[in-house]
Amino acid sequence: MTQQIRIGLFGTGRIGQVHAISVATLDEATLSWVCDPFIEGAKQTAAEFGGRVTDDPDEVFESGEIDAVIVASPTATHLDLVEKAIDANVPVLCEKPIDLEISRVNAFRDKAAASDVPVALGFNKRFDRHFVELKRRVAADEIGVLEQLLITSRDPGEPPAAYLQQSGGIFRDMTIHDLDMARYFIPDIVEVSARGAGVFSEGIREAGDFDSAVVTLRGSKNELITILNSRHSAYGYDQRIEAFGSAGLLQVGNKNDSLVRHWGSRSVESAGPYQNFFLERYAEAYRLEVAEFLRAVRGLPSRSPGFEDGRAALILADAAEQSARTGAVVAVDLT
Amino acid sequence: MTQQIRIGLFGTGRIGQVHAISVATLDEATLSWVCDPFIEGAKQTAAEFGGRVTDDPDEVFESGEIDAVIVASPTATHLDLVEKAIDANVPVLCEKPIDLEISRVNAFRDKAAASDVPVALGFNKRFDRHFVELKRRVAADEIGVLEQLLITSRDPGEPPAAYLQQSGGIFRDMTIHDLDMARYFIPDIVEVSARGAGVFSEGIREAGDFDSAVVTLRGSKNELITILNSRHSAYGYDQRIEAFGSAGLLQVGNKNDSLVRHWGSRSVESAGPYQNFFLERYAEAYRLEVAEFLRAVRGLPSRSPGFEDGRAALILADAAEQSARTGAVVAVDLT
Amino acid sequence: MTQQIRIGLFGTGRIGQVHAISVATLDEATLSWVCDPFIEGAKQTAAEFGGRVTDDPDEVFESGEIDAVIVASPTATHLDLVEKAIDANVPVLCEKPIDLEISRVNAFRDKAAASDVPVALGFNKRFDRHFVELKRRVAADEIGVLEQLLITSRDPGEPPAAYLQQSGGIFRDMTIHDLDMARYFIPDIVEVSARGAGVFSEGIREAGDFDSAVVTLRGSKNELITILNSRHSAYGYDQRIEAFGSAGLLQVGNKNDSLVRHWGSRSVESAGPYQNFFLERYAEAYRLEVAEFLRAVRGLPSRSPGFEDGRAALILADAAEQSARTGAVVAVDLT
Amino acid sequence: MTQQIRIGLFGTGRIGQVHAISVATLDEATLSWVCDPFIEGAKQTAAEFGGRVTDDPDEVFESGEIDAVIVASPTATHLDLVEKAIDANVPVLCEKPIDLEISRVNAFRDKAAASDVPVALGFNKRFDRHFVELKRRVAADEIGVLEQLLITSRDPGEPPAAYLQQSGGIFRDMTIHDLDMARYFIPDIVEVSARGAGVFSEGIREAGDFDSAVVTLRGSKNELITILNSRHSAYGYDQRIEAFGSAGLLQVGNKNDSLVRHWGSRSVESAGPYQNFFLERYAEAYRLEVAEFLRAVRGLPSRSPGFEDGRAALILADAAEQSARTGAVVAVDLT
Repeated sequence: MTQQIRIGLFGTGRIGQVHAISVATLDEATLSWVCDPFIEGAKQTAAEFGGRVTDDPDEVFESGEIDAVIVASPTATHLDLVEKAIDANVPVLCEKPIDLEISRVNAFRDKAAASDVPVALGFNKRFDRHFVELKRRVAADEIGVLEQLLITSRDPGEPPAAYLQQSGGIFRDMTIHDLDMARYFIPDIVEVSARGAGVFSEGIREAGDFDSAVVTLRGSKNELITILNSRHSAYGYDQRIEAFGSAGLLQVGNKNDSLVRHWGSRSVESAGPYQNFFLERYAEAYRLEVAEFLRAVRGLPSRSPGFEDGRAALILADAAEQSARTGAVVAVDLT
Repeated sequence: MTQQIRIGLFGTGRIGQVHAISVATLDEATLSWVCDPFIEGAKQTAAEFGGRVTDDPDEVFESGEIDAVIVASPTATHLDLVEKAIDANVPVLCEKPIDLEISRVNAFRDKAAASDVPVALGFNKRFDRHFVELKRRVAADEIGVLEQLLITSRDPGEPPAAYLQQSGGIFRDMTIHDLDMARYFIPDIVEVSARGAGVFSEGIREAGDFDSAVVTLRGSKNELITILNSRHSAYGYDQRIEAFGSAGLLQVGNKNDSLVRHWGSRSVESAGPYQNFFLERYAEAYRLEVAEFLRAVRGLPSRSPGFEDGRAALILADAAEQSARTGAVVAVDLT
Repeated sequence: MTQQIRIGLFGTGRIGQVHAISVATLDEATLSWVCDPFIEGAKQTAAEFGGRVTDDPDEVFESGEIDAVIVASPTATHLDLVEKAIDANVPVLCEKPIDLEISRVNAFRDKAAASDVPVALGFNKRFDRHFVELKRRVAADEIGVLEQLLITSRDPGEPPAAYLQQSGGIFRDMTIHDLDMARYFIPDIVEVSARGAGVFSEGIREAGDFDSAVVTLRGSKNELITILNSRHSAYGYDQRIEAFGSAGLLQVGNKNDSLVRHWGSRSVESAGPYQNFFLERYAEAYRLEVAEFLRAVRGLPSRSPGFEDGRAALILADAAEQSARTGAVVAVDLT
Repeated sequence: MTQQIRIGLFGTGRIGQVHAISVATLDEATLSWVCDPFIEGAKQTAAEFGGRVTDDPDEVFESGEIDAVIVASPTATHLDLVEKAIDANVPVLCEKPIDLEISRVNAFRDKAAASDVPVALGFNKRFDRHFVELKRRVAADEIGVLEQLLITSRDPGEPPAAYLQQSGGIFRDMTIHDLDMARYFIPDIVEVSARGAGVFSEGIREAGDFDSAVVTLRGSKNELITILNSRHSAYGYDQRIEAFGSAGLLQVGNKNDSLVRHWGSRSVESAGPYQNFFLERYAEAYRLEVAEFLRAVRGLPSRSPGFEDGRAALILADAAEQSARTGAVVAVDLT
């Protein structure tokens, strides 16, 4: 396969656009099909980035013109499309969450395990080079034994009401990224406790959801992991990690595009505001995510998270939701 | 009372020494009695800072030569000495925790409430000027509505085994400072959940205690407070607070005595290590704590935390212990 | 001219490569000719980035297949090629310095002024977005009246001996960038004093050149500008500017690609090393430099520095050399 | 001399007050005489810090009640009082500058050299522990060979007109501190060039003085030292040093009393303003300066700068003035 990998893209919403850009940017891939029941979206995306257009997934799989697919359609369609991809023997990169129902995920698990078709999950933060560097340096023993992990993750602003309705709640929609990030450092999580709160958003409260959350995980070696979430942040996208170990601390701070700082009579050393959106903060990570998936498509070793990672993150999100609702810690078994 | 306030000091261990230094430093006070059943300790302290010596608390109270007392003796003696002070109509500054048994504290509560004698509790962090500034700026609306609070508190190294035995455990001994600090910002806490872990210290595990802990509190306005604790820290005493609000973030960072930073071929912008001990980090706070207590002794308005704050912190510590043991969130009523 | 702008490139050394990459990256331009007397270099560059190959500049100009040229050949050839471009009515982007002999530049000045052909000078730092932001914020009155400017500019390591021989010396080769940067903020410089030193490099001393230098300029409004130079820097490429004004200070710090910081027992808050080379630090600026030149090619308003800026920088560099040699301040008239 | 050292203080202006406080703070010294022709000033200082009062220096020296003197009177009186001290065999700590006339200093030089009486000069910055740490770390080879030094020194606001009149000009009054600081790191200075400017202060210009200055020194090993001065600074007292060496960089940054930083929608990581005055920034240094002088008084090894350092700083300041006036570099010989 020395020619370009032909990609079929499902879903042309915000995240579908991101993946279309990545495919267009990467020399080794090309967009061959764009599929969306909202056919106008498909047409626009294809006009910009190439590919044929359809609203029928089967047409894509039956075309014989795809080497891999990217699933960026609504969550409820993820599992079906992954299954179609496996049946068609086509590698698939599926957005998170893999589904909102763990029972459906579990029912599908054996099939996924039995297949050789690569299934990659869209946990983009695993491809951020600062978090990758952090993991490498933890592994290189720069802080001794990893004992505590703090993941601060705050979105710039709350999502639209329509999005909230089908999001599955803060834990399955937003925290799930941080739960996977926790597992990137400490894969074997055995216990989840969580507190949620509605502190600022009437809309989120009315949707029965939390706008703020704190999650505490325990790893199998007694590591304690804390996740701080908020659906808003006045100072921009807040994405930090602190890894505390027996011999020191490593921290990934927020990204500031400007090197300029200001000194005045009322404050000093002031930097300009952070990037305001995940597409900016993780632009490179999204591209590397697709690039890594393409390695799997080519049969090369790939460090893409897979089906089991998607399932584990959902189990942790469900456990967080349960803990936040009941007040009890929830034991989990990710094996 | 224009002359110096005569102080009776109970206990001449490490923290007793700290208070003796503060009294010696403050012009308006003088050490008149030093009491310790370990009479050699009392003698040494008196030799250095002045005062008469005894191993009998009653002798102090009956001498008629004290205007106030500071209780820095072992925790088990705190309540008795506070009671003696109230009975003798002598203002008292009592070290934390007020006791390890909430039942005893509750039994004493009415008496404390009925008395006009000032009872101050030794929560020194409330007098650190950085935390005071943080509170002032939160109150001045610099970050809008306070929604989340993160208190990171890690000791440089674990305490001696003998100390651990009678410490009451990490929550009542160490976390209790952070629980009070949480209440300094958000007095009305309604819920506690906590996870403890033994991740590095054999000795602490054998003592049935945790060497690491994460506590999540909820305020009555749905604020979420997180406390991160460890009994060791390779990079020195780690004492940070982040206050997250609807309009921004305020952070108190760690203190570095040196203004020097280094740039080299392997790392840049490196600062020297932090102060290694609470006596250095909070030296000024300990002095201000006594100074503020002296205001109460003089009948002036004082912002010293009092008996109810001591009780509240113990209730929260007990709740944290219970939650860590049972895995269930614990509702608390501090009123 | 809606089609791509056809570029003729002179010189395929390090900086020629940089421009070839920029042209290849920009959609609106294409490489149509690559010219180098070292024909193998021209062939390699053309093989990678496109274009026809020659060792004869006239062939390029006579081909009728170019809309603009980029001059990245040795300094001694700059003026001749700029003249050919003007004669051929072809816009030209010329690398710095425009020449090493101010008499030749002056002799050419009237011709350049009489021509409508755009002549842009390759002062890439003017296109660094941090310096651009700094200038915008100074202009926006964030620090009041600009009184002092400090430009710290240290290369990671000294250039090869062969390069040194024909470099024109530190002031005309390296400082010239900072002299132009000074004029980016304060165009009207009236006075130059400079000190040079040979403190670490035997080779540079033997070449009769300085490895370190400090230059002080005075603007027509009595602003004082200081430039600190060194031909080596153990901690990577050091590129900072501080603008001091009546109401505050603005600073552009060094760029660090990593967001990771380390805390350990011997140092805290340590960042990883800086980028090590100007091609990395100014990669985006080089691209924007060519993009801005293309605006001029299209007849659009362009903020590219021009012939007069190239002349001014050389006058300042000559004055610095003279001052460093004689110990006397040198008055300059850039008009 | 196990009893307290009895100090005679000359001058009770601002700096005289500072020394009186230091003496009062140090256990080993006591104020025995306060002398000022403005007798009310002497009376006030004595009332607060102790000592007998006079307006006649001879009365102090003839009293037999002093072990050492501190000279904080107007500059014109310095040399006379130092001479009286030497004649009286009394160690003397003399404020900078030692005089404004190098001819008078030179005329006195032999006498100072012939005497065993300790003469210390009041260069307080040598006792700032951050600069001391910087020197120690440079000496410990943390940055290899010291090649460049940058001293940024900006006062918060310009001095009163009356002070300016007798100050001797910016170089002898303000820069002289930085010239001595340069010699603290690189004692053997061989060359001075300086540029002065009047950029903001009408009053300073009318006084024939500069409000801003840049000085470049050369050390005997070809080190280049740059001093940046301004008589005002909107963001508070600006006192920084950067030492650049063959293997790295060490920097002393500005001091901020607060550990609090702010993140908002318009700026992030903002610290509060710096200390606003030299008495705050160097409070500890002034105390250590006197303490070190007391060591000399006791006959112990002392690292106080002495007469030769005072003379050297004045020579450098004179050379800077001359260079700023003539535009020519000035060679100096400090031996």
